[in-house]
Amino acid sequence: MRHETHRLPASASTLEVLAVVEQLNRRPEIHGILVQLPLPPQVESRRVLDAVRPEKDVDGFHPENLGRLAQKRPRFVPCTPAGVMELLRRSGVELAGRRAVVVGRSDIVGKPMALLLMHADATVTVCHSRTRELAAVTREADVLVAAIGRPGAVRAEHVKPGAVVVDVGINRVSDPALARELVEPERFAEFEKRGYALVGDVHAPQVSAVAGALTPVPGGVGPLTIAMLMANTVRAAAAAS
Amino acid sequence: MRHETHRLPASASTLEVLAVVEQLNRRPEIHGILVQLPLPPQVESRRVLDAVRPEKDVDGFHPENLGRLAQKRPRFVPCTPAGVMELLRRSGVELAGRRAVVVGRSDIVGKPMALLLMHADATVTVCHSRTRELAAVTREADVLVAAIGRPGAVRAEHVKPGAVVVDVGINRVSDPALARELVEPERFAEFEKRGYALVGDVHAPQVSAVAGALTPVPGGVGPLTIAMLMANTVRAAAAAS
Repeated sequence: MRHETHRLPASASTLEVLAVVEQLNRRPEIHGILVQLPLPPQVESRRVLDAVRPEKDVDGFHPENLGRLAQKRPRFVPCTPAGVMELLRRSGVELAGRRAVVVGRSDIVGKPMALLLMHADATVTVCHSRTRELAAVTREADVLVAAIGRPGAVRAEHVKPGAVVVDVGINRVSDPALARELVEPERFAEFEKRGYALVGDVHAPQVSAVAGALTPVPGGVGPLTIAMLMANTVRAAAAAS
Repeated sequence: MRHETHRLPASASTLEVLAVVEQLNRRPEIHGILVQLPLPPQVESRRVLDAVRPEKDVDGFHPENLGRLAQKRPRFVPCTPAGVMELLRRSGVELAGRRAVVVGRSDIVGKPMALLLMHADATVTVCHSRTRELAAVTREADVLVAAIGRPGAVRAEHVKPGAVVVDVGINRVSDPALARELVEPERFAEFEKRGYALVGDVHAPQVSAVAGALTPVPGGVGPLTIAMLMANTVRAAAAAS
């Protein structure tokens, strides 16, 4: 496998970015296209993402691919939710008939995650910023997926004892007090050296005491996301040949 | 507004049906195409539905349109869930922050319904045939949407007192005992005359005593579905001109 990076100047216009996408769409030896987000503010991101040929959309962001996923005949599953499913499958977590709660309703993680869990026969609830009594809802979960984007937001009171908790968040924390609360002691030296640490959406010290299982950050869902991107690209190449 | 019906013989092949769809796709004076389901067993329904141009897909069944709905930028919303939203809006039912439960996960009703309620800021749970302790889950609902396809399946024990219950089901009941249970006394003469009655997925005599509001069957969601189809078609014509 070979890859190319097309880096445009930060001042590139929507049309300039679209021209690159169109060129990659046309080249038969290119099987997958990933648009590195976020794009600069002057670029219309949605127009760029929509321009990627669905057959090369290894991120699964094109509406046709999201629609196919919703219809349970996926072409490319968005990589992070696909990674979570792989992780649950390989860990032997049963989903059929169990209650799953997804916190976060983004197009890239929350919604496809909910669809995948539903297709695996879980009873799925999606929570978000407007959810009232969040802890009461998340405590219903046998499987809880946190995709909020706020460090340590899921705490002990949000978790039913024994639940499987999947932490999708990757947040950069530079506040020492917050880092001291969320980062394990053995990683604290690293924080002091770099001036920041990566933490998830789950308050790991609290939740690990309650949950039946908890994915770590870093090293949990993140590497799976990248593996799924590779898997989608291989699939794209196989479908094209 | 003018409409055409293209009726094919029951023995028509997939390719024959596709030829009609392609012809309608090409005619600029045709703004909306509705494929009357179910198609005969020898016709590949999904292939036919996928062939309808997304811009003329007034049913909202094309994956691109379902994907656009999931991304909160709908082109055409499937008519039944769109009708339910219209009904809730016009009845002044608040959704933001409230718990909504959808029973049924079909591509045509359950899933788009869940997405629409989520976009209206409800906390949404989707139940289905594999859901355990269904009544405990549905009793969490402030707004309960039944799209199961089984007469009278939602009973008093499934409903929280005061909840808003939307009955999407339309079932033909010809068993007299079942009809006596589900059909209001004033419609029973009609049942005896015709030999069948239409009833919803909700056990209306039981649930009307518990719910804060309940849509009737027939005459509830059904007419709204047809109105939404008209609205989508008008929208398609406006977008084309």
